Amino acid sequence: MDGDGASSTGATPSEEMNGTGNLMDFLDEPFPDVSTYEDFHTIDWLREKSRDTDRHRKITTKSKESYWELIKSLLDAWSGWVVMLLIGMLTGTLAGVIDLAVDWMTDLKEGVCLSAFYYSHEQCCWTSNETTFDDRDKCPQWQKWAELMTGHSEGAGAYVLNYFLYVLWALLFSFLAVSLVRVFAPYACGSGIPEIKTILSGFIIRGYLGKWTLLIKTVTLVLAVSSGLSLGKEGPLVHVACCCGNLFCSLFSKYSKNEGKRREVLSAAAAAGVSVAFGAPIGGVLFSLEEVSYYFPLKTLWRSFFAALVAAFTLRAINPFGNSRLVLFYVEYHTPWYMAELVPFILLGVFGGLWGTLFIRGNIAWCRRRKTTLLGKYPVLEVIVITGITAVLAFPNPYTRRSTSELISELFNDCGALESSQLCDYVNNPNMSRPVDDIPDRPAGPGVYSALWQLALALIFKIVITIFTFGIKIPSGLFIPSMAVGAIAGRIVGIAVEQMAYHHHDWIIFKNWCRPGADCVTPGLYAMVGAAACLGGVTRMTVSLVVIMFELTGGLEYIVPLMAAAVTSKWVADAFGKEGIYESHIQLNGYPYLDVRDEFTHRTLATDVMRPRRSEPPLAVLTQDSTTVEDVETLIKDTDYNGFPVVVSRESERLIGFVQRRELTVAIKTARQKQDGVVSSSVVYFTEDNPQVAEACDPQPLKLRRILNLSPFTVTDHTPMETVVDIFRKLGLRQCLVTRSGRLLGIITKKDVLRHMAQMMNQDPESIMFN
Amino acid sequence: MDGDGASSTGATPSEEMNGTGNLMDFLDEPFPDVSTYEDFHTIDWLREKSRDTDRHRKITTKSKESYWELIKSLLDAWSGWVVMLLIGMLTGTLAGVIDLAVDWMTDLKEGVCLSAFYYSHEQCCWTSNETTFDDRDKCPQWQKWAELMTGHSEGAGAYVLNYFLYVLWALLFSFLAVSLVRVFAPYACGSGIPEIKTILSGFIIRGYLGKWTLLIKTVTLVLAVSSGLSLGKEGPLVHVACCCGNLFCSLFSKYSKNEGKRREVLSAAAAAGVSVAFGAPIGGVLFSLEEVSYYFPLKTLWRSFFAALVAAFTLRAINPFGNSRLVLFYVEYHTPWYMAELVPFILLGVFGGLWGTLFIRGNIAWCRRRKTTLLGKYPVLEVIVITGITAVLAFPNPYTRRSTSELISELFNDCGALESSQLCDYVNNPNMSRPVDDIPDRPAGPGVYSALWQLALALIFKIVITIFTFGIKIPSGLFIPSMAVGAIAGRIVGIAVEQMAYHHHDWIIFKNWCRPGADCVTPGLYAMVGAAACLGGVTRMTVSLVVIMFELTGGLEYIVPLMAAAVTSKWVADAFGKEGIYESHIQLNGYPYLDVRDEFTHRTLATDVMRPRRSEPPLAVLTQDSTTVEDVETLIKDTDYNGFPVVVSRESERLIGFVQRRELTVAIKTARQKQDGVVSSSVVYFTEDNPQVAEACDPQPLKLRRILNLSPFTVTDHTPMETVVDIFRKLGLRQCLVTRSGRLLGIITKKDVLRHMAQMMNQDPESIMFN
Repeated sequence: MDGDGASSTGATPSEEMNGTGNLMDFLDEPFPDVSTYEDFHTIDWLREKSRDTDRHRKITTKSKESYWELIKSLLDAWSGWVVMLLIGMLTGTLAGVIDLAVDWMTDLKEGVCLSAFYYSHEQCCWTSNETTFDDRDKCPQWQKWAELMTGHSEGAGAYVLNYFLYVLWALLFSFLAVSLVRVFAPYACGSGIPEIKTILSGFIIRGYLGKWTLLIKTVTLVLAVSSGLSLGKEGPLVHVACCCGNLFCSLFSKYSKNEGKRREVLSAAAAAGVSVAFGAPIGGVLFSLEEVSYYFPLKTLWRSFFAALVAAFTLRAINPFGNSRLVLFYVEYHTPWYMAELVPFILLGVFGGLWGTLFIRGNIAWCRRRKTTLLGKYPVLEVIVITGITAVLAFPNPYTRRSTSELISELFNDCGALESSQLCDYVNNPNMSRPVDDIPDRPAGPGVYSALWQLALALIFKIVITIFTFGIKIPSGLFIPSMAVGAIAGRIVGIAVEQMAYHHHDWIIFKNWCRPGADCVTPGLYAMVGAAACLGGVTRMTVSLVVIMFELTGGLEYIVPLMAAAVTSKWVADAFGKEGIYESHIQLNGYPYLDVRDEFTHRTLATDVMRPRRSEPPLAVLTQDSTTVEDVETLIKDTDYNGFPVVVSRESERLIGFVQRRELTVAIKTARQKQDGVVSSSVVYFTEDNPQVAEACDPQPLKLRRILNLSPFTVTDHTPMETVVDIFRKLGLRQCLVTRSGRLLGIITKKDVLRHMAQMMNQDPESIMFN
Repeated sequence: MDGDGASSTGATPSEEMNGTGNLMDFLDEPFPDVSTYEDFHTIDWLREKSRDTDRHRKITTKSKESYWELIKSLLDAWSGWVVMLLIGMLTGTLAGVIDLAVDWMTDLKEGVCLSAFYYSHEQCCWTSNETTFDDRDKCPQWQKWAELMTGHSEGAGAYVLNYFLYVLWALLFSFLAVSLVRVFAPYACGSGIPEIKTILSGFIIRGYLGKWTLLIKTVTLVLAVSSGLSLGKEGPLVHVACCCGNLFCSLFSKYSKNEGKRREVLSAAAAAGVSVAFGAPIGGVLFSLEEVSYYFPLKTLWRSFFAALVAAFTLRAINPFGNSRLVLFYVEYHTPWYMAELVPFILLGVFGGLWGTLFIRGNIAWCRRRKTTLLGKYPVLEVIVITGITAVLAFPNPYTRRSTSELISELFNDCGALESSQLCDYVNNPNMSRPVDDIPDRPAGPGVYSALWQLALALIFKIVITIFTFGIKIPSGLFIPSMAVGAIAGRIVGIAVEQMAYHHHDWIIFKNWCRPGADCVTPGLYAMVGAAACLGGVTRMTVSLVVIMFELTGGLEYIVPLMAAAVTSKWVADAFGKEGIYESHIQLNGYPYLDVRDEFTHRTLATDVMRPRRSEPPLAVLTQDSTTVEDVETLIKDTDYNGFPVVVSRESERLIGFVQRRELTVAIKTARQKQDGVVSSSVVYFTEDNPQVAEACDPQPLKLRRILNLSPFTVTDHTPMETVVDIFRKLGLRQCLVTRSGRLLGIITKKDVLRHMAQMMNQDPESIMFN
């Protein structure tokens, strides 16, 4: 029954975050009024819902009075769609701007465009006359730093100079990013998804979705991604989209004054964020539904879809990739897959699950170390060191030097006839006369073999560095790095299978489906399956993952391989630990998050969880007609509970209602100021009837029935905890009173439930394996 | 508090359905035991869930005892996936068989294959040597009836004979269908989706998903679709899939003995049904989520997806369409759409909304008439008459003569260069030398104009006949007829826009995007948008609709037109009435369905809804230690309530628990038979302590605490009804007790809630418009 915020569960939301919090104030909301909640507190969904119904009822009643009110009520009904439109447009625009800026700044690490410094490498060479892809890359307008400074583009000196400048730019970008985050918006760091999950489940983190966070996160995201660190923009884009959602909520009192309604908008905003991150609107909606949201009514489903579409459409209008494609990795395969290939696909799924386990365990261990040791005191230094290591190790390997999304894009691609990449260096049959799209399997050339070595090194590098990168104090998503790990592994497996099929097509496993001279194996598809498996292992998404992948490729054909890999990876990862990376971070930070997926299967009863325990002092209660104003004030001063049950009398202990601490404080303060005759010895009445004042000399009574909640939620002491957990989860309660035959026995808060669940989980860790 | 079945809400689930119910018994389950529910009763979700947790707990505890138990517990954990695999495989197989049988029998109405009578027209001509599509249709192996009988294939006589036989076959098929339904499985009629929605929300309709229904529905679905009636196979396929789900549930006690778990399986089965109906697995899952399911936890999402995929995959392996395509209508467009085209798309959305309203109102009015007048007494005659009218009117028009799905397929198609259909009879430019896929807009030829007339007539015919067809006593879905109406309207609009753009490309609206000689307008896309709009207007689906359409075409490009049309159509239809066709039918049949989408916004309190009302006799309660066995037996005999609250004493009325009627009956019966000394005057004790028997001559007491539910759900009398509705909806309660300061005041059952909601809705119909 104490202030059920995270801070009292023993886990402090990183102190350094609050250190510079006062800087944000001038951009953020003023001091909250009585009806809203305090920072790091949980909202009461039932109460928010009933407040919205009241508001709605008032508008409906008024709308019958005049045409003006009717129009106002119609506007109110449509405001949800307007907010969605605005969110979609702003999210799409920001995503487009981020994409353009990242493109330019990533290339800036290597060189500059002479015709216009603000052009990226690709844009710079668009107007060039060279025709092949390879030559076009080397257009004269684009100059590497060494070439520009010394005039030499080749040789050891140029290489060292380029290397040096690459590392320098990376350090500069990351230093800028971490400084901006530290000084202006500490909440802008990380992926943001664990916090957004917590916020959507009904927790208040003031300023986490503020304007200032929006601004800084957008800018630092560009810097962080451009610095070449092993991180992605997808998670932070969801955070940015939710900030946009919060921003537009403040335009309409319907959303700004109701924390429940606000969360509906934020769920839709999260969908818009993923929609623009991948160019996958349906995947975005499912991601919001499966992974992020807590309360997701059908109305929100439609609105999310609308917001996701508008965002995707806006992004397409901006056209940051210059190819009218909505999706991040557009691929087109020309061959189907065969049953026998399911074996390597499932193996990739196993790899994905193992990677997920390794990543989560390693990352959580590292983050715990950061929280508890000196390491956490020097976030700027940590970012600089990790950037330095990343840049120094990344430059020599062509597969890690470029941006991670370009790498994934190349790994996903099928080798066409015109492809000039090293990965497509196959030995061509000189008398091949097929159409360019349908190339038979060929033996690998030397380029492919050297590419395999470099990819293997890149794989190890990415695996290690990503574990240390996720969680540093700059915006960092893990979709792209996870997908990169999987794509590299998948491509390696794919090439291996392809070469086996080519050289041994008489083996029994290949005989049935792979004639010589046919195009049987598509290594790019293996990369895609691997990416899905690794992403699934880390996040434990399944349906939304497959849908995102399916939207990326636009082909239903590959849904079975993707699903096989995603489900295998989830099973393997679940065998080692039930929680995905987001849940693990939520737990690490001690947020009061009641996961809908955890099933509570223990045989405890409400009486085992409720407070006060046997050894504790009795529950702090008010009586309906025998407490004085002074008693109440003492109670408020001595305790920090959110509210107090009101009973008939201390003897009978029959419950009549529940009163909120905040409302009680305000009511007494107001009464003392404005109401004559209310003094410390006045009796507080919660009864319906008028109190009978016996003698004239008695002080004026204070009637407070109007702030009494007459329908507090109760369960009996014999209610099984599984039912209580279900009730808290589904109704979004903040607290629940425990009674036995009408007598008040105790109280259970959301925090008590969470603590009990954690206790039970540790006591019997095996039981979580079967679900 | 009375038996809260549909029968007591005043709406009897059609008596004729129960008339022949005894025939099903030998295939269906034996008489239910104590733990299950009675027919037409509502389940208690909390109770089912807690029973499953108990079962799970037992298995987990046992699994530590021996390896054999561990294996058994692992098998139990995997049984969910096994059930999904089986459902997917059987559903896919049945769908394949149905597709093949429908193909053959539809063609049988026109002619027969001489080389093998069981070949459909298309299969018959596969081996033929003719090359063009047109000639291949006229291969010599396939003979129309007139040709076979008289030797003449042309002329008035042959036409009349073909006409006559077409009508005759149609009548034969539909007579067979309706007879089978009437005699063997009355539940097999209709689309089944309203009933499945009700069942999934926790209602028991015994036999509705039985083996017998499965068998008959599969057979009669083939007959009904082949008869050429204006109905589709999609809704019934969902019913068939759910029957498969129910069938496989009986293999595992985990599902067969728990109505809650069973419903999780059924939700997944519904997804598999839509998956095979359209070849759209993701759309199927979303359909189940958005339209059908009530309780849809994330675990079910994954399993549904798995079942949908297996089903789609099985269907593809059977390959009923002979083209390796999964989807029902495979289309490929070659041109993008333009902003200006949104205007006709939105107009199609408006048309769809109007069609939805017209259809729902007309159909419900007709079905009500059927329920209340003599019409309902002659279901066979009704089917015969409607089939006769349909066949007679359909034959002369080539667009209605063929099967509806073929019609839709042709309307969706883009006119390629090789297309020989009348709809593609454009005037070609003789010196055109473009690739065949990218044909510029051309002026329409005479064939197109005559096709337009025939389509207009087909449109009117389909609109009228579908209203009367949906609801007759054979399996009938409305997806296909609705889509046909929309596709016809869309194609007409599309051709009109195309011709306008061709002839007036200097108009300001076309100037910007449609150069002469370019391919600007794709009439097939308009047909698709129209189909989506009409389907949306009738069912009020949005997201799942767009996803299904998107999976049909496989192109993200057209998601915005589809979404625009779907949302417009929903808005227009919602303006005329909030309910989709399924909800309307649920209401018409009086099923106790608590729609998650209805928002309750009235200012009533629990005290206004609870029973007993002021004028009614007091609540039937038991006391904890002063009721005799005889009193209890009288109470059971005199009332038909589902259960009785137990209070401390009649004076204090403090609630201690709730006891189920069934359990009470069984306990007393058992005690009387087996327990010595329990006679009519024995006192029934619900207390914890041992009752003190004062004198030896007193009869032996009967202790029944073990059947007492010590955690009945309570709310206070001041709880707003919106909260009560929320609690019933989210926790799936059957009843809820009302107290004030611990004193029992009354009870609210699900039925009371539904009745109250209906009252409030009628009282204030305007308030439902804003949501």
